[in-house]
Amino acid sequence: MQITILGGGGFLGRKLAGRLAREGTLGGKAITGLTLFDLQAPPALEAPFPVRCLGGDVADAATVRQAIPAGTDVVVHLAAVVSAQAEADFDLGMQVNLHGTLAVLQACRALPKPPRVVFTSSVASFSGGQEARLEDDARQLPGNSYGAQKAIGELLLQDASRKGFLDAVNIRLPTVIIRPGRPNKAASSFVSAILREPLLGLDTELPVPEDFAVWICSPRRAVDWFLHAMTMDTGPMGLDRGINPPGRSATVGKMLSALEAVAGPAARARVQHAPDPAIAAIVGTWPGSFTADRARHLLGFSEQESLEQIVQGFIEDDLAATRAERGL
Amino acid sequence: MQITILGGGGFLGRKLAGRLAREGTLGGKAITGLTLFDLQAPPALEAPFPVRCLGGDVADAATVRQAIPAGTDVVVHLAAVVSAQAEADFDLGMQVNLHGTLAVLQACRALPKPPRVVFTSSVASFSGGQEARLEDDARQLPGNSYGAQKAIGELLLQDASRKGFLDAVNIRLPTVIIRPGRPNKAASSFVSAILREPLLGLDTELPVPEDFAVWICSPRRAVDWFLHAMTMDTGPMGLDRGINPPGRSATVGKMLSALEAVAGPAARARVQHAPDPAIAAIVGTWPGSFTADRARHLLGFSEQESLEQIVQGFIEDDLAATRAERGL
Repeated sequence: MQITILGGGGFLGRKLAGRLAREGTLGGKAITGLTLFDLQAPPALEAPFPVRCLGGDVADAATVRQAIPAGTDVVVHLAAVVSAQAEADFDLGMQVNLHGTLAVLQACRALPKPPRVVFTSSVASFSGGQEARLEDDARQLPGNSYGAQKAIGELLLQDASRKGFLDAVNIRLPTVIIRPGRPNKAASSFVSAILREPLLGLDTELPVPEDFAVWICSPRRAVDWFLHAMTMDTGPMGLDRGINPPGRSATVGKMLSALEAVAGPAARARVQHAPDPAIAAIVGTWPGSFTADRARHLLGFSEQESLEQIVQGFIEDDLAATRAERGL
Repeated sequence: MQITILGGGGFLGRKLAGRLAREGTLGGKAITGLTLFDLQAPPALEAPFPVRCLGGDVADAATVRQAIPAGTDVVVHLAAVVSAQAEADFDLGMQVNLHGTLAVLQACRALPKPPRVVFTSSVASFSGGQEARLEDDARQLPGNSYGAQKAIGELLLQDASRKGFLDAVNIRLPTVIIRPGRPNKAASSFVSAILREPLLGLDTELPVPEDFAVWICSPRRAVDWFLHAMTMDTGPMGLDRGINPPGRSATVGKMLSALEAVAGPAARARVQHAPDPAIAAIVGTWPGSFTADRARHLLGFSEQESLEQIVQGFIEDDLAATRAERGL
């Protein structure tokens, strides 16, 4: 199996690459090569197979062809400009999120054998807001440019699958918590920060009320879903290549209770209320919940962890590295 | 009012331009200029205001900026590669239907005042097939590249409206009958041909069964909808810029009965059954019906004509010109 991860230097790309390196196989077959591609070449990775690390612009056709060489079986396309950044810089969002996906489509189409493409779309491609519990056939009516660009990417890859140019699985990722590292430009950055920063012994701000519900998943489960999507039988999906995976709908208050259960009341006290209408305006349009029936019962995507497991998972997987990275 | 019609040389573009020329005003304001743009420069049009006729590639940014000069109040974007052609030539469809709409977006965004943009999307952007009666919030899951490119165009213009770059109304046109001229490369070409060809005294073929239902509208009503969309208050639309206008669901059998009622049994006898699985595969995924509640009850789009009126309208508006054009 020859694999390419676009956005391979990012949070989820690195976790997926690490998991592939540890396992050495995918779907029972030996991995024969891995290409990690990002804006800057990702750092070298120790693995029982050759790993190429490339840097470049995902919207540049020639560069992307280099990252997806002949013989590629699976492309995981995680490269994106995140929500608040795509909202602040429309042109950059279009360049990376739309023209990047077009370049990926064309590179895959040029291969002798159509590769599996796992594309990360997002809950941000839907509207509905807090009260919504969206069915699998819910319409994507994005309230932000990032979500619009992701919905467009899904349409492109769905049609390319129908044409036989590639074989796509478009996973609409929930808000992934707990992200390691620093706060970023995603509008949903706070959902990780209210758990991560207290675990680092730092104060942080909550821009929404405690009864605000978020559709979440853990990094461990997101990687499990990628691995599943990389080898699953796409036949039962038919025309519809979009997946609402089994996330969890959790209020901010429940997340803080899980933090307190694992790390004590002092950790929870690190979180101060600081309403931010700009952030609330973006995340407030995202649906609070999905049924995820198709992913669960037809397509075999695994269930979500508990909130306590998610906090514990961050402590086990990412706390030390985040401390080191941030000099804490 | 300064108006641009992209695709101004096509069937509906010419009808809309003729109507504007006859009326001289739009929404109670004098028309001060009209630009007609198409692949080949449309023929000159007599009008009580200046008319520019330009030819060029709708995907070329500089050309499109020329077609949408500063001071443009309304852009009607009809330029497209039609369904069967976009299916046969994927790259051409992407170039015109996707990159063309991107060029329109960028040209409008560069104007000092955001223009109204009326974009023709299509029933082909939906799935559901014969049994479907789609609600206004139905998901667009296209079963053909044309429909995918139209759904993408809607997302682009909806997001650009939210950003304030322009002010879009995306009309998902039903199959427009009766098209004048010759059969074309649209998969739905037969729906016009089974009425037009007999009225011209010619034999024609029906590729689907007589109980096959099509969501249709007349050219007169399509032009009425464009005029309404060019000046309507878009406030009540909110985020959702997509319109399912009040078409009519009609079986091919009912259409042939209307033909017989207006033109006699000899006309109907000109239609031979000739099943075509390739055509049926494309049009068979298009929904047979829509509720169109929002367009009717909230947004003031006018109701459809009867099938007999549609046949009569073709005889009055287009029969003589079609005869002349085809040397009949």
